[in-house]
Amino acid sequence: MAGSELTNIKSPRVKAARRLTKRAFRDRDRSFLAEGPQAVREALALDGVVVELFATAEAETRHADLVAAATAAGVPLLRASGEVMAELAQTVTPQGLLAVCRFVHVPLETAVTPGSTLVAVLAHVRDPGNAGTVLRTADAAGADAVVFTDASVDPYNGKCVRASAGSLFHLPVTTGAGAGRVAQHLKDSGLRVLAADGAGELTLDDVDLSGPTAWIFGNEAWGLPEDILALADEVVRVPIHGRAESLNLATAAAVCLYASARSQRTAPAGVRRPAPAG
Amino acid sequence: MAGSELTNIKSPRVKAARRLTKRAFRDRDRSFLAEGPQAVREALALDGVVVELFATAEAETRHADLVAAATAAGVPLLRASGEVMAELAQTVTPQGLLAVCRFVHVPLETAVTPGSTLVAVLAHVRDPGNAGTVLRTADAAGADAVVFTDASVDPYNGKCVRASAGSLFHLPVTTGAGAGRVAQHLKDSGLRVLAADGAGELTLDDVDLSGPTAWIFGNEAWGLPEDILALADEVVRVPIHGRAESLNLATAAAVCLYASARSQRTAPAGVRRPAPAG
Repeated sequence: MAGSELTNIKSPRVKAARRLTKRAFRDRDRSFLAEGPQAVREALALDGVVVELFATAEAETRHADLVAAATAAGVPLLRASGEVMAELAQTVTPQGLLAVCRFVHVPLETAVTPGSTLVAVLAHVRDPGNAGTVLRTADAAGADAVVFTDASVDPYNGKCVRASAGSLFHLPVTTGAGAGRVAQHLKDSGLRVLAADGAGELTLDDVDLSGPTAWIFGNEAWGLPEDILALADEVVRVPIHGRAESLNLATAAAVCLYASARSQRTAPAGVRRPAPAG
Repeated sequence: MAGSELTNIKSPRVKAARRLTKRAFRDRDRSFLAEGPQAVREALALDGVVVELFATAEAETRHADLVAAATAAGVPLLRASGEVMAELAQTVTPQGLLAVCRFVHVPLETAVTPGSTLVAVLAHVRDPGNAGTVLRTADAAGADAVVFTDASVDPYNGKCVRASAGSLFHLPVTTGAGAGRVAQHLKDSGLRVLAADGAGELTLDDVDLSGPTAWIFGNEAWGLPEDILALADEVVRVPIHGRAESLNLATAAAVCLYASARSQRTAPAGVRRPAPAG
């Protein structure tokens, strides 16, 4: 199935994939890299997402099921030497599998609709590892969508893809819209917009979370800027019961999203705010 | 107040501090390194913890309040060149302040008593960044103590100290006891012992968390080994509502600890289980 092994890190196919580690080239090609068997499996589960698959000889044997699935889907398999894989992979111990994938995000209006009940918005999140962890947590908490605003890190950044542990392929993700447009669309879709910020007057225990809710998360160091706080219906903080100064971003997001999931799922029928008509 | 500037990375005082980056030397000297103004401030708030303070000339000016507090407490100040600080600090951008601190942990019996209502136990946690993040979250959630079992990472590992963001100095931490002894002491102290594991039969929403509770957290990749699960009163999982396979350790711990904090603080008076006599 694969042709001869790619051993030259300067070959055009290797260079074309390698440059997808840079955002400008990702945006131009509308493609990104997904590393490791877990991400490759999730990507292959979506039609037409994987454009080509690089595999070392060892990985081709160890992950024969994935290679077979790729081949069955008509995905070109490129056998890569260890040196070529090391050139492409961004982890210290690459697991020998790497897929070039088409962008998977959808328009804001497709991701968030009047039927949405839980949405996570990443506004000004700059650390790709944090962003990927929040994406994974939002998936686990049963969120309908994750929104990256135009001031946040690129969801296709390699660290974000890895930290998401496959969740980038699980739920609708949207990127590129400004915070103002996002907030308006969330409200138009019937969601209450809560900004998570350590300076919030209300705590998580003070708000009724049983209705459709969107959470806006900011940057750990700065919190959320004034213009974003002004867009929210409420500014809510996770209560600090001990002496810690704050929580890290991914931790705070987990506590907020799971508090929403629990309230929504345990609320008596009829308490959930109905989606508006249209 | 400080003597002449230390400029030689091979000087005995620099070498003595530098070797505290290794666990064997930390255990021998019963001392560790705390980096950056936040950690130094928290360490200085405890009597007799800071043994000596290294500061660059720039940091001595910028953090004059901390240097003054150290001097007032009789802590020797060692002025360090940028090169010496870079040798001692484990961060890429050291902030010019670094304290040699005495161990702060306490015996298990001091940390956990019949008055304890929320305790986090790190069993088999190997990643120091994860361990420090859980320590910070436990502090924020109002835990009474954090227990590192003998199979977990060293709480004085530099990455753990940094990730704890000062919380290592905020609440009683204990280390070195085996999981069996820890579980028995928790039960003897009137705490219900819950093991957090993705394979648990009960979910967080199924259990009454209003009473005194200890949470045992394991290793992200392995979960908890059978012998630890057998020590627990219940094995509890964080529910996965979406398609994520799992949560990362620090995220799961945050959701569990905050669920306990919320239940305990909102439970009607009288519902909390009384501590046993003696």
